[in-house]
Amino acid sequence: MRIAMLAPISWRTPPRHYGPWELVTSLLTEALVARGVDVTLFATQDSHTAGTLAGVCPAPYSEDPSIDAKVWETLHVAHVFERAGEFDLIHNQADFVPLAFSRLVDTPMVTTIHGFGTTPERVLPPWRAYQDRVAYVAISDADRAEGLHYAATIHHGIPVEDFRFDPVGSDDLLFFGRIHPDKGAAEAIAAASRTGRRLVMAGIVQDEGYFARQVEPAIDGDRVVYAGAVGGEERVRMLGAARALLHLINFDEPFGLSVVEALASGTPVIATRRGSMPELIDHGVTGFLVESVDEAVAAIDRLGEIDRAACRRAVEERFSVDRMADRYLALYRSLIG
Amino acid sequence: MRIAMLAPISWRTPPRHYGPWELVTSLLTEALVARGVDVTLFATQDSHTAGTLAGVCPAPYSEDPSIDAKVWETLHVAHVFERAGEFDLIHNQADFVPLAFSRLVDTPMVTTIHGFGTTPERVLPPWRAYQDRVAYVAISDADRAEGLHYAATIHHGIPVEDFRFDPVGSDDLLFFGRIHPDKGAAEAIAAASRTGRRLVMAGIVQDEGYFARQVEPAIDGDRVVYAGAVGGEERVRMLGAARALLHLINFDEPFGLSVVEALASGTPVIATRRGSMPELIDHGVTGFLVESVDEAVAAIDRLGEIDRAACRRAVEERFSVDRMADRYLALYRSLIG
Repeated sequence: MRIAMLAPISWRTPPRHYGPWELVTSLLTEALVARGVDVTLFATQDSHTAGTLAGVCPAPYSEDPSIDAKVWETLHVAHVFERAGEFDLIHNQADFVPLAFSRLVDTPMVTTIHGFGTTPERVLPPWRAYQDRVAYVAISDADRAEGLHYAATIHHGIPVEDFRFDPVGSDDLLFFGRIHPDKGAAEAIAAASRTGRRLVMAGIVQDEGYFARQVEPAIDGDRVVYAGAVGGEERVRMLGAARALLHLINFDEPFGLSVVEALASGTPVIATRRGSMPELIDHGVTGFLVESVDEAVAAIDRLGEIDRAACRRAVEERFSVDRMADRYLALYRSLIG
Repeated sequence: MRIAMLAPISWRTPPRHYGPWELVTSLLTEALVARGVDVTLFATQDSHTAGTLAGVCPAPYSEDPSIDAKVWETLHVAHVFERAGEFDLIHNQADFVPLAFSRLVDTPMVTTIHGFGTTPERVLPPWRAYQDRVAYVAISDADRAEGLHYAATIHHGIPVEDFRFDPVGSDDLLFFGRIHPDKGAAEAIAAASRTGRRLVMAGIVQDEGYFARQVEPAIDGDRVVYAGAVGGEERVRMLGAARALLHLINFDEPFGLSVVEALASGTPVIATRRGSMPELIDHGVTGFLVESVDEAVAAIDRLGEIDRAACRRAVEERFSVDRMADRYLALYRSLIG
């Protein structure tokens, strides 16, 4: 089976730090290659894969200001379709532009819809226009757009073995994600403060004004600690060394990689009951779904009910890369026929 | 001969006010239809043509904020290529994105390159990548990019009969164009002021800060008059009722429609010797090419040497829509074979 895997070119595949679409694309690609599938990864030229790398774009446009996003996205997408005849299937992970080429080739095509952004109604027209040609995969049932039909929902998988299970955790609460109103950093600070527990925060600042007004004043290096962007071994340690992850989001998050990563580390998650959260968290078993800061505070008091081993187990069973790869392979086979 | 004419969707075709790419696309389309060519104009759905209108985009993205430019450009361009088999040739007037589809169809393709923007090096990669597949037309010899090969240079044509020849003009000088540093509004004010002549200005404000600092303080309703955006009969009158058009540009303008329109009205042009200006203005015959405000002031003193009828005649001979249509038709025929 010869698969063309089309990555976005915003970041390297796999990403150096941030880049969730590129991360998932890389995890799936490498898992397929490990199963013996012949995968050609179309990505930026600085990308890495155990499969075959193909690409025309010299560097990611979010990392190199000399790269014009529109120019290189156009060339990048055209490249895979000009080679369509070499593949049994094209798997598009790079948003809607590739849809526009799909009727000009015979190769079957799968598209993982990673999200519709902040104004779905503006971007839905191409998704509607090509739904009879391209098999769509939702990354959660919550993220399915009304009126679109999908071939499947396939949750992202993570490399569970890369996250060390911490059976003890700590007394601290954890915020892990972009500092942005969507991600509920201010709500996490409020909830932690009311329980008297320390809050450890990590993540890139995406909204400077929000950080300055709502987050920075609370950082005192004692009750609220901000560690900046954290990667590597420190990230692994931090995800496990917490009593709970506070994920008090203010948007319908299509999927939450950090939620699943915390669970894999043994850390239960307290999350707003929105978007994909009810699909990721088993209420009362791997964490709690809440609808306010008050409910989050009450949930923190109930964390003793949670078995940290059950959190790890849930990820092993439902959110492994292997399971994700199995699901995609089954879909590919059904489309290649 | 069945031609697919692909217009941009930034503005209606023809544009209501501003929209030079759409204007040229419309003029050529209607001239071809008048010659009996079977032209399908792919443009926004509110566009007009005596040919066949085709389009998926409900409104121009620069006029309707609900229209996402990337979403609709993608659908618009895909539309023409999905119907490529119905046409003998595709003529692209809509920048570089359509190039990316060209190798997926068999239909010959012409692209008029309307410009490379302010940072050509950033946008040249797709033009380089598709020059062996698509026949490029430069809109002036000055706008040819080094290292690209072109099938032809074809200057824009204007409907000369729509511009009334004014044999007398007036004592006033004229600025006609976007209020932007590129277009030299401040230089026009300086030159006019030194000759003691009134300057009449017309055009949309594209750079608000520049307008506030460099233009607005000089407007006194007497020596410097600003008429705002001007269209219709008032525009025709204004282009003729001037001693000269001051076109003291600060960039390599690929083509200057207002230069040719002023000449058609009998008004000579004093322009910076940059970009396409030497191709549009016959120095000492239809105006003067200058390299500084000092030279512009000197040229204003020499306007008595210019025969206004010669200005009109030059446009009739070299910049008519008919001549433009003849040149494109000859190119189409050479490509269809």
